[in-house]
Amino acid sequence: DFMMALEEVKPLFGVAEEELEKRLRGGIIPFSGFIEDILEEGRLFINQVRKPDSTPVLSVALHGPPESGKTALAAKLALDSGFAYIKMVSPEDMVGFSESQKVQQLDKVFTDAYKSDLSIIVIDNIELLVDWVPIGPRFSNTVLVALKVLLKKQPPKGRRLLIFGTTTERTVLQQLDLFSKFDAEIAVPNVNSQAELAHILQHAGFSDRDQQRAIGELQEITGGADIGVGIKKILTGIETAKQDQDMAGRFARVMSRAIAANRS
Amino acid sequence: DFMMALEEVKPLFGVAEEELEKRLRGGIIPFSGFIEDILEEGRLFINQVRKPDSTPVLSVALHGPPESGKTALAAKLALDSGFAYIKMVSPEDMVGFSESQKVQQLDKVFTDAYKSDLSIIVIDNIELLVDWVPIGPRFSNTVLVALKVLLKKQPPKGRRLLIFGTTTERTVLQQLDLFSKFDAEIAVPNVNSQAELAHILQHAGFSDRDQQRAIGELQEITGGADIGVGIKKILTGIETAKQDQDMAGRFARVMSRAIAANRS
Amino acid sequence: DFMMALEEVKPLFGVAEEELEKRLRGGIIPFSGFIEDILEEGRLFINQVRKPDSTPVLSVALHGPPESGKTALAAKLALDSGFAYIKMVSPEDMVGFSESQKVQQLDKVFTDAYKSDLSIIVIDNIELLVDWVPIGPRFSNTVLVALKVLLKKQPPKGRRLLIFGTTTERTVLQQLDLFSKFDAEIAVPNVNSQAELAHILQHAGFSDRDQQRAIGELQEITGGADIGVGIKKILTGIETAKQDQDMAGRFARVMSRAIAANRS
Amino acid sequence: DFMMALEEVKPLFGVAEEELEKRLRGGIIPFSGFIEDILEEGRLFINQVRKPDSTPVLSVALHGPPESGKTALAAKLALDSGFAYIKMVSPEDMVGFSESQKVQQLDKVFTDAYKSDLSIIVIDNIELLVDWVPIGPRFSNTVLVALKVLLKKQPPKGRRLLIFGTTTERTVLQQLDLFSKFDAEIAVPNVNSQAELAHILQHAGFSDRDQQRAIGELQEITGGADIGVGIKKILTGIETAKQDQDMAGRFARVMSRAIAANRS
Amino acid sequence: DFMMALEEVKPLFGVAEEELEKRLRGGIIPFSGFIEDILEEGRLFINQVRKPDSTPVLSVALHGPPESGKTALAAKLALDSGFAYIKMVSPEDMVGFSESQKVQQLDKVFTDAYKSDLSIIVIDNIELLVDWVPIGPRFSNTVLVALKVLLKKQPPKGRRLLIFGTTTERTVLQQLDLFSKFDAEIAVPNVNSQAELAHILQHAGFSDRDQQRAIGELQEITGGADIGVGIKKILTGIETAKQDQDMAGRFARVMSRAIAANRS
Amino acid sequence: DFMMALEEVKPLFGVAEEELEKRLRGGIIPFSGFIEDILEEGRLFINQVRKPDSTPVLSVALHGPPESGKTALAAKLALDSGFAYIKMVSPEDMVGFSESQKVQQLDKVFTDAYKSDLSIIVIDNIELLVDWVPIGPRFSNTVLVALKVLLKKQPPKGRRLLIFGTTTERTVLQQLDLFSKFDAEIAVPNVNSQAELAHILQHAGFSDRDQQRAIGELQEITGGADIGVGIKKILTGIETAKQDQDMAGRFARVMSRAIAANRS
Ligand SMILES: Nc1ncnc2c1ncn2[C@@H]1O[C@H](COP(=O)(O)OP(=O)(O)OP(=O)(O)O)[C@@H](O)[C@H]1O
Ligand SMILES: Nc1ncnc2c1ncn2[C@@H]1O[C@H](COP(=O)(O)OP(=O)(O)OP(=O)(O)O)[C@@H](O)[C@H]1O
Ligand SMILES: Nc1ncnc2c1ncn2[C@@H]1O[C@H](COP(=O)(O)OP(=O)(O)OP(=O)(O)O)[C@@H](O)[C@H]1O
Ligand SMILES: Nc1ncnc2c1ncn2[C@@H]1O[C@H](COP(=O)(O)OP(=O)(O)OP(=O)(O)O)[C@@H](O)[C@H]1O
Ligand SMILES: Nc1ncnc2c1ncn2[C@@H]1O[C@H](COP(=O)(O)OP(=O)(O)OP(=O)(O)O)[C@@H](O)[C@H]1O
Ligand SMILES: Nc1ncnc2c1ncn2[C@@H]1O[C@H](COP(=O)(O)OP(=O)(O)OP(=O)(O)O)[C@@H](O)[C@H]1O
Ligand SMILES: [Mg+2]
Ligand SMILES: [Mg+2]
Ligand SMILES: [Mg+2]
Ligand SMILES: [Mg+2]
Ligand SMILES: [Mg+2]
Ligand SMILES: [Mg+2]
Repeated sequence: DFMMALEEVKPLFGVAEEELEKRLRGGIIPFSGFIEDILEEGRLFINQVRKPDSTPVLSVALHGPPESGKTALAAKLALDSGFAYIKMVSPEDMVGFSESQKVQQLDKVFTDAYKSDLSIIVIDNIELLVDWVPIGPRFSNTVLVALKVLLKKQPPKGRRLLIFGTTTERTVLQQLDLFSKFDAEIAVPNVNSQAELAHILQHAGFSDRDQQRAIGELQEITGGADIGVGIKKILTGIETAKQDQDMAGRFARVMSRAIAANRS
Repeated sequence: DFMMALEEVKPLFGVAEEELEKRLRGGIIPFSGFIEDILEEGRLFINQVRKPDSTPVLSVALHGPPESGKTALAAKLALDSGFAYIKMVSPEDMVGFSESQKVQQLDKVFTDAYKSDLSIIVIDNIELLVDWVPIGPRFSNTVLVALKVLLKKQPPKGRRLLIFGTTTERTVLQQLDLFSKFDAEIAVPNVNSQAELAHILQHAGFSDRDQQRAIGELQEITGGADIGVGIKKILTGIETAKQDQDMAGRFARVMSRAIAANRS
Repeated sequence: DFMMALEEVKPLFGVAEEELEKRLRGGIIPFSGFIEDILEEGRLFINQVRKPDSTPVLSVALHGPPESGKTALAAKLALDSGFAYIKMVSPEDMVGFSESQKVQQLDKVFTDAYKSDLSIIVIDNIELLVDWVPIGPRFSNTVLVALKVLLKKQPPKGRRLLIFGTTTERTVLQQLDLFSKFDAEIAVPNVNSQAELAHILQHAGFSDRDQQRAIGELQEITGGADIGVGIKKILTGIETAKQDQDMAGRFARVMSRAIAANRS
Repeated sequence: DFMMALEEVKPLFGVAEEELEKRLRGGIIPFSGFIEDILEEGRLFINQVRKPDSTPVLSVALHGPPESGKTALAAKLALDSGFAYIKMVSPEDMVGFSESQKVQQLDKVFTDAYKSDLSIIVIDNIELLVDWVPIGPRFSNTVLVALKVLLKKQPPKGRRLLIFGTTTERTVLQQLDLFSKFDAEIAVPNVNSQAELAHILQHAGFSDRDQQRAIGELQEITGGADIGVGIKKILTGIETAKQDQDMAGRFARVMSRAIAANRS
Repeated sequence: DFMMALEEVKPLFGVAEEELEKRLRGGIIPFSGFIEDILEEGRLFINQVRKPDSTPVLSVALHGPPESGKTALAAKLALDSGFAYIKMVSPEDMVGFSESQKVQQLDKVFTDAYKSDLSIIVIDNIELLVDWVPIGPRFSNTVLVALKVLLKKQPPKGRRLLIFGTTTERTVLQQLDLFSKFDAEIAVPNVNSQAELAHILQHAGFSDRDQQRAIGELQEITGGADIGVGIKKILTGIETAKQDQDMAGRFARVMSRAIAANRS
Repeated sequence: DFMMALEEVKPLFGVAEEELEKRLRGGIIPFSGFIEDILEEGRLFINQVRKPDSTPVLSVALHGPPESGKTALAAKLALDSGFAYIKMVSPEDMVGFSESQKVQQLDKVFTDAYKSDLSIIVIDNIELLVDWVPIGPRFSNTVLVALKVLLKKQPPKGRRLLIFGTTTERTVLQQLDLFSKFDAEIAVPNVNSQAELAHILQHAGFSDRDQQRAIGELQEITGGADIGVGIKKILTGIETAKQDQDMAGRFARVMSRAIAANRS
């Protein structure tokens, strides 16, 4: 019935695009020049793998703070590549899997990828995939070693594969000796400046006055101009604020809590 | 027979309301202004999720001292929401479950929720759900990681989900890196002042004299006016006191022990 | 065959009284005023639960040194209550049970109790039930969490349940965060004074002279008047002494060793 | 097939006497007055249990250094008791048993004992029975807790049981909180003085001159008159010495090594 | 189905050469005199085993920094030996294997080797084969002990076996007491000097000017002439650089990051 | 299929002699007077067990540095004894065995031995048999306890058994409390002096000049006359040296590395 459990796993083929598009619901707001740089760098690696006589396997780690947009950017890059096989491996689709079921699933995705000339695999939320918990510390050795091996495994002749991994825990992956298995890395930043924040508020339909009030009150509460919050957290905060009469004020209060949480 | 064990689990559908009402047996006594604030804040999140083009998944942690009313308040909010699917996930209904049975159950409740437009899931007593014990420390990594993933999992298109979690162990959840997965938090306080206590005694039918005697003797024994005891512990203490000839005196003695236990 | 193993467990219904009476073989010797106080306090909690509109579930921890009479007192209270369902859950009846079989058994006893209007469950020797060993330390997390949950679980409408727990390890249960789940506690003392000891020797048929000689020699060996030994240990010591020509002298020697062991 | 494995265990009934006699092959050499004292003390406990209205269960720990004769003395006492049911539980008969098979076996022996009016169970080498290893430290929690429970379990009405336990690791059993579950203890000493050693050599057929030479050379090598070696080790050393031309000299050398090993 | 899982493992016979050639895709670039020394040393051991009356089993550890060419060199030596049985045991072919499946596979490869007169087994990436992770630390004791035993196991009469092991973790294998089980060791170096790097760039088709620019800029960024990077990392860096307009500049930037990573 | 796995184990009877002779391939070179002493001591223990009315079970630990000849010496003694039952228990024959399969195998070998009047069991490489790894430290408790018990278990009436154990880890076995279960010990030394080394080189066919050159160069490299290397390592080094033109020089270099490794 272990085999049965595996069968029950919904087939990943075909649905991959839908899966990836779901991660892009909030779009990619170009709130800073870094965003285009990241996409440019990603395209360069895609082209490297595209060249017939080049590296048969290449892996790139996208790392950055929580909710900074790592998954969305990896999804965007994968969708735009035009590669034959595109797949996201995510802990979301493995709730309740045993360690060995996870490894079987990973192995299957790689084996499937080896059947196409050009493939991209996005391994999302690696720290959750290996069941990382800081207390102990604990993690799945089995999944970790499988990842180490798969990142370095040579595809069969003529097949080429690009792997994007996303993680909030670069240091942890370094301690686990997993980070060094990636051939390259791309850092994804928080929304950091008031100008970047204003760009996003504008995009969300805040009037100029509301933008100024929100940012002004936020500076007042936090006592500084630094933001340092992930784009996704900001988008959620905007939604909460919209429920309140005092939208700008509520936004400032919600954001100030997020900023405080990051500082502690 | 693992599957069989799961079948035997009594179906949660339909009975959810009854389950939630059971948690409200003692009613919601408005012993302080904070109680209405909490309910107001909760309703704001419910409305945020209700809006069609807003956050598809939102999670709120209700945390506070033991027996302070967290579960009752979450139940109240859920019952009043009018959402199509309302479910409480509680360790009480999982006695004897293996870690993986717990995860299967959690996964099932979320999968069921994704079938309704608007859903609320109350995850009760999270520290017990993850088998937390301070010695070791020990906890279920499997359930913990499943919670982390489910709190962040995107529902299918058009489905929206609000999650309330209750816990006495905010710091523990922070150490386990679970607390940061919640989008917002609401603090539930103890009964703290003599005025609040008087309000409750009044509600329980104590005469003015008995209220004064009880509170006076309590202040004498503890040497202070601070209470700092959960509403549920106070309601139980009142019941015990009612068995005694000297109701007010017995109540003071029982409460003084609860206060002492909290201080140590 | 796990189910089969459970079937083989001898049914607990009906035999409960016999089981409880076995624990009372030595009777309850009123060697001190505390004994009546304890019984009085216990009866108050029984009455609290008996009242129809009162607390549906109440739990009381009986704690004290080894062999001080905790189990006998809990058995006495339960037997005298006249409640419809009375059951003792004891590690003695669970030798060789796996952790999950213990939890199943516990769950069954609670489920059975919920079928009667008024029930008492005595959970004996909690530290052994959770497999506590100080080295490590080790214990059964599974049984521990099940106890925490069951102590707080609400019975169905109209059912009321009183739980007595016995333990020698109050501090341990506090560290395990289990003790705070009890609503009340009763301390069971050792036999501490020479007067109390004399009362017991008298009851065992020692002549006045033998009592005096025994207590005198004991004071001489230990160099003090403090006793601090459990009632059951004293009753066993009396039996050993009766084998010896020099009954009083032998009793003094046996007791002095028990006192020394407690001091170290 | 777990059941089958248990069936294969050779039935312990009837063969018990043979089993016990095997442990007495070297006889009981009365090399010191302590030996008779130990036997006398043991008989007193046997008589205590024999009395119809006395303690229904009594447990005595025989502890002492390795190879000091603990098992032989317990076997002697059991064989001489004339009780209806006599059984030795030894790790020797449980090689390859899982923890739970050991517990099943222990439970069975106790259950069998409860069927006779008067029974003696010898639990041999308790530290090995619980798989104790000082590194870690490690031990079988399951077997340990089963022993704790069984030592205190009340036999059915009218049945009486005496338990002898043997161990070299009194301190370990104290740390494991197992030693305190015994009602009494008997210390078994090494062969300590030259006079005691001479008594044994005499018994083994050494001439007076050989005795003197052996003891003299031993004192010379070790630089002292203290022996401190178990009776069994001495009997084995005598056998080795008998292979050598220079019997007395070889004995002295072999013994000096045993003495050195104990000192380190 | 454990047996079935083993069956499913694709037969290793015959395909071995293809497997080994895959590891040699980048060829062996003689960028330094050490490369020939290593191959010479390897051939000496091959000849030792070839001699009929010599050592029946000999093991050699190839150790060095990541991506320094260990596997390629072992593959080259094995392919050139002309031995009857040549096999690579690699974690890549054991993704998802349980510890005991790994051991079964190892045992099978050795058993197969014992059937040929002359065999070479390459055990690749030993630190991954034993699931080594520095945190904890953790590793598979089962696989580790199997390796220790197999490295020392005598083949049947007339069979002779050479074992190459590769690892980046010499110190770890020493701590695990595995390294000392090898009869000899060969150190594989990084590309260390600018001259060596130039040799490789030349081989990759860089013009003399591009070589100079690349090495010049690299020296400028890193502030030194030391390289200290594995050959494979350099070959991958060259591929990435080829995507960029500014090939030499990009190569310098990519390499400088690799050098920085090694220094931290 | 656990039983099946055991069946598949190739029967050990009859082949034992062949197995033992395999360990003696390099013969026993009498390179020092200690070698004869060891064999003499071993024969004395064999004779002790041979005597009908003597010790029914005797165990002797052969301990010494790696590759010093422990196994060969134990095999030699066993083969020369003429006992009816001779068996070697070696980790080599248990690759892939679970802990409990190892214990079953051990138990079987002892049970078989008890069927013959006179038996010798060689337990080889005890530290590997118990899966000892210094990191952790880790080891198989199950196998360890089984060994402790079996070393002390009394054979049936009339059967006598001698056990040789070999190990490189005397201190470890002492910490595990296993070493003290042996009745005697024999230390096996390294090749330590230049004279001993010359004896071996001579035996291997080195001319007097080659001997002098090899030893001279070795002294030069290591800066001293101490050797301290196991006989087996020396014999392997001789084979490697024979591949080189400069046999004496190569031997010196190979040996110097072995000496250096031992010093670190
Ligand atoms: N410039 C941007 N970059 C990335 N995401 C953006 C950007 N602008 C808007 N978004 C939106 O922000 C959200 C980013 O969420 P995403 O899940 O990708 O973050 P994450 O870093 O992967 O979070 P987590 O740490 O939880 O994995 C997406 O909904 C995306 O559509
Ligand atoms: N203002 C109030 N807020 C919450 N609960 C109240 C209030 N007034 C009365 N109650 C009653 O008090 C009890 C609170 O118990 P509840 O189980 O909700 O507490 P809890 O904080 O969840 O406890 P625990 O820490 O054990 O989970 C309920 O019976 C509820 O009906
Ligand atoms: N006043 C008393 N209180 C309790 N027990 C008494 C009293 N007088 C006599 N006894 C007898 O003393 C014995 C007490 O033993 P009991 O097993 O109840 O102790 P315990 O505290 O539960 O021991 P343990 O710590 O081993 O669980 C019983 O046989 C009981 O009949
Ligand atoms: N006075 C004595 N007391 C005990 N045993 C004696 C005495 N005289 C001779 N013997 C013999 O000495 C041996 C004692 O061995 P025994 O196995 O009983 O020791 P032990 O203390 O149980 O050893 P271990 O620590 O290994 O369990 C037996 O063979 C016994 O016949
Ligand atoms: N002189 C050389 N020595 C070794 N490999 C070389 C050499 N020149 C070119 N190569 C190429 O460099 C690559 C070396 O990669 P290889 O996988 O052998 O390194 P590795 O040290 O085993 O890496 P890892 O530490 O990841 O196991 C191969 O593609 C090989 O063809
Ligand atoms: N004097 C000697 N003593 C022992 N072995 C010798 C002697 N002379 C030659 N030999 C040969 O040396 C080798 C010793 O190897 P053996 O496996 O017995 O060593 P070991 O100490 O058991 O090694 P390990 O520590 O790996 O178990 C054998 O091949 C043996 O024939
Ligand atoms: Mg993400
Ligand atoms: Mg609650
Ligand atoms: Mg009790
Ligand atoms: Mg013994
Ligand atoms: Mg490699
Ligand atoms: Mg050996």
